[in-house]
Amino acid sequence: MDFTEKLKNVIREKGSYVCVGLDTDNKKIPEAVTGDTGERIAAFNKSIIEATSDYACAYKCNIAFYEAAGIQGHEALHESLKFFPEDVLIIIDAKRGDIGNTSAQYARAVFDVLGAGAVTVNPYMGYDSIAPFIEYEDKGIFVLCLTSNAGSADFQKLSLSDGRPVYMEVARKITEWNTHGNMGMVVGATHPEELANIRKIAPGIPILIPGIGAQKGDLEKTVRAGIGKSRALALVNSSRGIIYASSGEDFAEAAGKKCRELRDRINEVI
Amino acid sequence: MDFTEKLKNVIREKGSYVCVGLDTDNKKIPEAVTGDTGERIAAFNKSIIEATSDYACAYKCNIAFYEAAGIQGHEALHESLKFFPEDVLIIIDAKRGDIGNTSAQYARAVFDVLGAGAVTVNPYMGYDSIAPFIEYEDKGIFVLCLTSNAGSADFQKLSLSDGRPVYMEVARKITEWNTHGNMGMVVGATHPEELANIRKIAPGIPILIPGIGAQKGDLEKTVRAGIGKSRALALVNSSRGIIYASSGEDFAEAAGKKCRELRDRINEVI
Repeated sequence: MDFTEKLKNVIREKGSYVCVGLDTDNKKIPEAVTGDTGERIAAFNKSIIEATSDYACAYKCNIAFYEAAGIQGHEALHESLKFFPEDVLIIIDAKRGDIGNTSAQYARAVFDVLGAGAVTVNPYMGYDSIAPFIEYEDKGIFVLCLTSNAGSADFQKLSLSDGRPVYMEVARKITEWNTHGNMGMVVGATHPEELANIRKIAPGIPILIPGIGAQKGDLEKTVRAGIGKSRALALVNSSRGIIYASSGEDFAEAAGKKCRELRDRINEVI
Repeated sequence: MDFTEKLKNVIREKGSYVCVGLDTDNKKIPEAVTGDTGERIAAFNKSIIEATSDYACAYKCNIAFYEAAGIQGHEALHESLKFFPEDVLIIIDAKRGDIGNTSAQYARAVFDVLGAGAVTVNPYMGYDSIAPFIEYEDKGIFVLCLTSNAGSADFQKLSLSDGRPVYMEVARKITEWNTHGNMGMVVGATHPEELANIRKIAPGIPILIPGIGAQKGDLEKTVRAGIGKSRALALVNSSRGIIYASSGEDFAEAAGKKCRELRDRINEVI
């Protein structure tokens, strides 16, 4: 069973398209969570995971937040990875990419050292920068295609000589490179029309969709374009909107509630 | 004094354009270096730094290699950073880039936690993904422009609607974003003609040039195109060609010799 099939099963079994983004920032962790930086990050994540795992099918650990906390942050990430139940997909959101020799090291770090089930990578350096990840055939490789931020206009949306935007060529190459059935792509929720166009040329590719919540993407349009009636594979990510739903002692309960609501809102649309 | 001025001084004082790439892989460290993984990485780096620092003006720590060694690798990187003399530039080769909120965390990890003097970043996500790095006004931000690998053809060399390749628009934007005098770019030594064209539109931007040595870039053409008679600012990086010059007990001495030779060959061309 390839990655795409596995993801389909996870989504079906959990009845959820929700990915929870663990962008865990020590400064934003509620005061109720005590200890040193590493302990607080791990304890916060444990509470959030326990409160949300009935309603989410995937988690996205944004590795930047752990790197910013130094060695303690890396240790807290390792610790946090033990708290996930077996029936969810763990994505390391790392946006890595380098020459092949180096990307092989990044792939080892994400898949062998951290044991993640999927990773995000950056396409700018082309095929051989992504190939070492793809070679992990049972892991998911989500390639940045059209991102949710304003800067997506700078290069991703530039018109090529044939009139197509750069991101459409990225999407096309992703489908071409998908020989192991383990490629996915990242398309931000702030571009629902473009998402629909990308979906047309890549109907079977799982799409990781960040940008609802704090980034103000439109959930309903996004779900119609990315999942729709055909139940195409997509993960709708919410980070700050779920994990920082409350800064009080009820932070975990509030996160669980927001996660369940998001699951239900998505399921109502499709 | 801005980053560009500081780099100019470092190059002039050392009389060298050489950047040594510390792509330190435990599997490739000579047997003469003993201890556990973390100890071997740190001890190897210490020996290489001591043997080469008379001939190099900069070091590039490729963070992928440290991540692949897990927590021990991160600790070894922290340890290694203590061994650099004050008169060299330390670049963390990380090729990071994410939405602003996340890139701010990456910038913190590289500049505040690791204390690097410069970083490599990926342009695909556009200005706001790079801005948090640029805000560290005294640090150098080397943006990937045209990379040394075969995959540079996949997206970087695509023709835009006005006929220019994507990487030329990246180069143009880098010059536009250089309001603090702290932007640089990465152009691989495998493209000397393109390097000359990029140099024309960005005469004052420091260029980090990997790809000589193991990647077979042409040194003489590269130096003429990137530095030339006008002594434009560039760093010519060699990683494997220097640090793994010998697998015997003389590995540090051999690295020092290769580094000195590279310095001299570059200086002879200009």
